[in-house]
Amino acid sequence: MIDAPLDHIAIVVADLEATLALYTDVLGFSEVYRETVADQGVEAVGLRSGDAIIELLRPLDPTSPIAAFRGTAATKLHHTAYRVDDIRAELARLRAAGVRLIDETPRNGAHGNTIAFLHPKSTGGVLIELCQRV
Amino acid sequence: MIDAPLDHIAIVVADLEATLALYTDVLGFSEVYRETVADQGVEAVGLRSGDAIIELLRPLDPTSPIAAFRGTAATKLHHTAYRVDDIRAELARLRAAGVRLIDETPRNGAHGNTIAFLHPKSTGGVLIELCQRV
Repeated sequence: MIDAPLDHIAIVVADLEATLALYTDVLGFSEVYRETVADQGVEAVGLRSGDAIIELLRPLDPTSPIAAFRGTAATKLHHTAYRVDDIRAELARLRAAGVRLIDETPRNGAHGNTIAFLHPKSTGGVLIELCQRV
Repeated sequence: MIDAPLDHIAIVVADLEATLALYTDVLGFSEVYRETVADQGVEAVGLRSGDAIIELLRPLDPTSPIAAFRGTAATKLHHTAYRVDDIRAELARLRAAGVRLIDETPRNGAHGNTIAFLHPKSTGGVLIELCQRV
């Protein structure tokens, strides 16, 4: 993943409609998709930011880890995702380099992408996702 | 700032060399610049991520607000920066829209850019920077 581009940044939010109004009406970003990502337990809205996406995540379950991560903040930066061409090859390479993985095999993410999370224990605490676009 | 591209994401770090080794040697990003940004009280290293930059920030003063923001995490997502063509016009537009600004007038950021921060009270808590490249 040499200089892999930012695919998206994800922000967990308490009030999806209020945050969406801020990012669209005030800041000027356009909605690209809105969907429920059952696998991650969130409703996700993707906003266009150049070639990248700002993804607003509303936890479906207020007792889930992602909801707990938000704590009392109205919005909080949750993870960064980098775009790779061959996610299986990258996971194998990182595993061999000693990086702990949350997802040993890729799974379905938002917007039809194939994704996998690295374990934050191996990345200094920041949650990093690899993302292969369809 | 219609669909303004992500200019950079910033990560505050405890150990700059260890984090840099992770992002370069393990993950595969390339160092673009390293400099002290006196105005923000940080040593900053910029890494290439497609057309965007991952900026690692080491607070120069361990008692500064940015160091306090990191808390006990080894690394923590600190802010998102969006690239605009005319930062003064955007600040005027946002101010008129009721957005509170940290920087009423732009100032010098890393890598020669002109930057300004919006106040997180107006953005749901996530620190947002506008950035006009040189």
